[in-house]
Amino acid sequence: MQPYELSLTEAADAIRARRLSPVELTDSVLERIAQAEPHLHTYVTVTAERARRAAREGEHEIAAGRYRGPLHGIPMGVKDLIDVAGVATTAGSRVRADHRAQTDSTVAARLTRAGAVLLGKTHTHEFAYGLTTPQTRNAWDTGRVAGGSSGGSAVAVAAGMATFALGTDTGGSIRVPSALNGVVGLKPTYGLLPRHGVTSLSWSLDHVGPITRTVEDAALVLTALAGHDPLDPASLTAPAIDYRPPAAVELKGLRIGVPRNYYFDHIAPEIEAAVRHAIDQLQALGARLVEVEIPMARYVQATQWGLMVPEATAYHADTLRTVPELYQADVRILLEAGELMTAGDYLRAQRSRTLMRQEWARMFEDVDLIAAATVPATAVRAGQETITWADGTVEGVSDAYVRLSAPANITGIPSLSLPVGHDTAGLPIGMQLLGRPLEESVLLRVGHAYEQTQPARDLAHAA
Amino acid sequence: MQPYELSLTEAADAIRARRLSPVELTDSVLERIAQAEPHLHTYVTVTAERARRAAREGEHEIAAGRYRGPLHGIPMGVKDLIDVAGVATTAGSRVRADHRAQTDSTVAARLTRAGAVLLGKTHTHEFAYGLTTPQTRNAWDTGRVAGGSSGGSAVAVAAGMATFALGTDTGGSIRVPSALNGVVGLKPTYGLLPRHGVTSLSWSLDHVGPITRTVEDAALVLTALAGHDPLDPASLTAPAIDYRPPAAVELKGLRIGVPRNYYFDHIAPEIEAAVRHAIDQLQALGARLVEVEIPMARYVQATQWGLMVPEATAYHADTLRTVPELYQADVRILLEAGELMTAGDYLRAQRSRTLMRQEWARMFEDVDLIAAATVPATAVRAGQETITWADGTVEGVSDAYVRLSAPANITGIPSLSLPVGHDTAGLPIGMQLLGRPLEESVLLRVGHAYEQTQPARDLAHAA
Repeated sequence: MQPYELSLTEAADAIRARRLSPVELTDSVLERIAQAEPHLHTYVTVTAERARRAAREGEHEIAAGRYRGPLHGIPMGVKDLIDVAGVATTAGSRVRADHRAQTDSTVAARLTRAGAVLLGKTHTHEFAYGLTTPQTRNAWDTGRVAGGSSGGSAVAVAAGMATFALGTDTGGSIRVPSALNGVVGLKPTYGLLPRHGVTSLSWSLDHVGPITRTVEDAALVLTALAGHDPLDPASLTAPAIDYRPPAAVELKGLRIGVPRNYYFDHIAPEIEAAVRHAIDQLQALGARLVEVEIPMARYVQATQWGLMVPEATAYHADTLRTVPELYQADVRILLEAGELMTAGDYLRAQRSRTLMRQEWARMFEDVDLIAAATVPATAVRAGQETITWADGTVEGVSDAYVRLSAPANITGIPSLSLPVGHDTAGLPIGMQLLGRPLEESVLLRVGHAYEQTQPARDLAHAA
Repeated sequence: MQPYELSLTEAADAIRARRLSPVELTDSVLERIAQAEPHLHTYVTVTAERARRAAREGEHEIAAGRYRGPLHGIPMGVKDLIDVAGVATTAGSRVRADHRAQTDSTVAARLTRAGAVLLGKTHTHEFAYGLTTPQTRNAWDTGRVAGGSSGGSAVAVAAGMATFALGTDTGGSIRVPSALNGVVGLKPTYGLLPRHGVTSLSWSLDHVGPITRTVEDAALVLTALAGHDPLDPASLTAPAIDYRPPAAVELKGLRIGVPRNYYFDHIAPEIEAAVRHAIDQLQALGARLVEVEIPMARYVQATQWGLMVPEATAYHADTLRTVPELYQADVRILLEAGELMTAGDYLRAQRSRTLMRQEWARMFEDVDLIAAATVPATAVRAGQETITWADGTVEGVSDAYVRLSAPANITGIPSLSLPVGHDTAGLPIGMQLLGRPLEESVLLRVGHAYEQTQPARDLAHAA
């Protein structure tokens, strides 16, 4: 097994035990990048020299007994929406061609403090405003979309081109590409991870979170990044927690909600089967399944778009006037559409969100978490615009991919996507666990328990 | 001295000492209402029988040794925007002619629990969307406006027709009529007093608060009403505090900010002189005066209206379509204007508010409170539409009255208005004390200290 194939947890254990050096690991991942990048297109910028330097520093520190914790010496990628001092933040856009960050985002600073080794900046759908990341290829089939908007991060982690990565999620942008590439993605509770220095798409829906190979890996990254940041006005002041899940797989006493509506409507039969099978595994571990009715399901789409579109347009107001030609057509159309929305539309969406939060909180009185599919379709072919469902309904690919993710953005609750198999085309399938605000630990515990029932997974092998 | 002339503090002391019975006090106030109401028009509904019954119950409870505290047996008025079970809440509008509250608002329930005696519902500008309350006359000159929107409450307290009253304040609606009628009005920190059961004007700016004859009285009411309410989504979870100010008038060590801009621009010279004289009194009590620059002053008006107008329109969307003819022309025009506002306008106002909050917080690093005028003009004649300033500038009456109050609504900070004299026409002048969030105690202490330097005041005598 090559070092680049190790999970974060495995690599961290090996580094701590001095069986593996950060330099060795980083070199292995950089070689993997050199080999796979021409086929997958995951990185905007690879900061190889900087990475090697950081790895050497890590090696020295650890040799000197100054081990910082499980991220020390671990090579990782950062979505190109997140500022790292001295590196360009292009946000996947020609509008940002000349942007070079002067200071670290809070999450980048915390990763550095934890000793993580930056490999480079990963591709994003332009300004995170889309669900495919057209620059990047799926890690399991280069003819298919990576998903988005954190497509580069998810593909890099899936293909061994980063031991972990950071993404952002406004309507599913961490979880969608994680599901489509067979990796773990966590959108934490709104406000848990600081967004200072992260380009905004829609500030009331934006989240930063980890993309990893295992649930335990996600817990390690979350532990290093959580904590109040006075520079993010939405940052929570929740107490610091060690999110690492317990080894026990016993789930007795836990009530898992299984949606009777919404989450299994218009969904590929192979995905439904895989997710229901995974839910059965959780039941076999002792959890009790409780059927739940998803409240206000018919308002999800209108609420998500009603919040996101005007906020995105407000953020881009100046450049949309001065350099509209620099935007990709799909993003420009969305931004221009936002100029036509009335204050009443936006307020209706805000009020709908408030009601939806209340209704979801009520639902969580009966269950401890909810298990469902992450996306209703596996990775579509590049360029495919729509999905036709069994009943003849035609749905836009982006609408389909955002559909099951958006409720967690609207309500701000945590959502963890983890792989639960492949379809007959060999494409990964994701399951989503949704929990109460600040109950990431519950999701991580359940996801980790599920993983332990599964055979070890290979990395993606399209390149 | 008649019982209706007593301040809340005086009446409470007399009741607790059993020198005065709640029945005696309530009868005295009801008689005063009967005498003055034809001239001042403060009450929509007088619930005299209910009041007498409640007063008798209070009398029995107190006689039996079950004294509930300083509001026990005290007759008071409630703005007709605030639900009281079994009584109509007309909100001053024909749209609400048939509305009868089924349950108490949280503040009404807390007043009842504290033993206060409801006299009735006081007039409001229609749906609180205006600064004059045209139904009601000024307590000092019936040819002049009461101010608004809590005009009925302020006039009732000023004229002895209620020992205290509740108002609401979205852009100055407690403080403006308090200033114009020579009484004390407190707009607490946003979220401190619950708004459940209170008709909304603009939910991100709306506040409930007391109108009283003295600062100490305001502290007693605030103490009885503060505390978290799960039914108001904006309700804070601040710990319960006894707000009663200390007897000491010493203000040594306190830094009082005196604005060099905004608050003394376009203001009647007699008001400026009275407020500056009052500030000098505070200095004589030991406070240190510090000149401050009000930040983002030129954005106050656009921010206030940019938030208020679309939120108000959203609230009235249905009735505006079904029964537009039932609204008064001034209110209907404002509501219809809200339909033309874009989401971008509203978002700009929200962002401006965020910046303004930060800038004000920064200003409060240098001072403990700010002292300024409450309104730039005393009560204008009924029907007067504009004010012409010395430099020839013409300003709408409502714009002028809201101008100095709005910053506290936008930023959510507490603001206390108290009387500081009369102009040569005999009309009251108000001073405003503005403090840090949740520092009501500081404002009440300073206001109370000021009051003790002043001779006892008479009630208003226009009727």
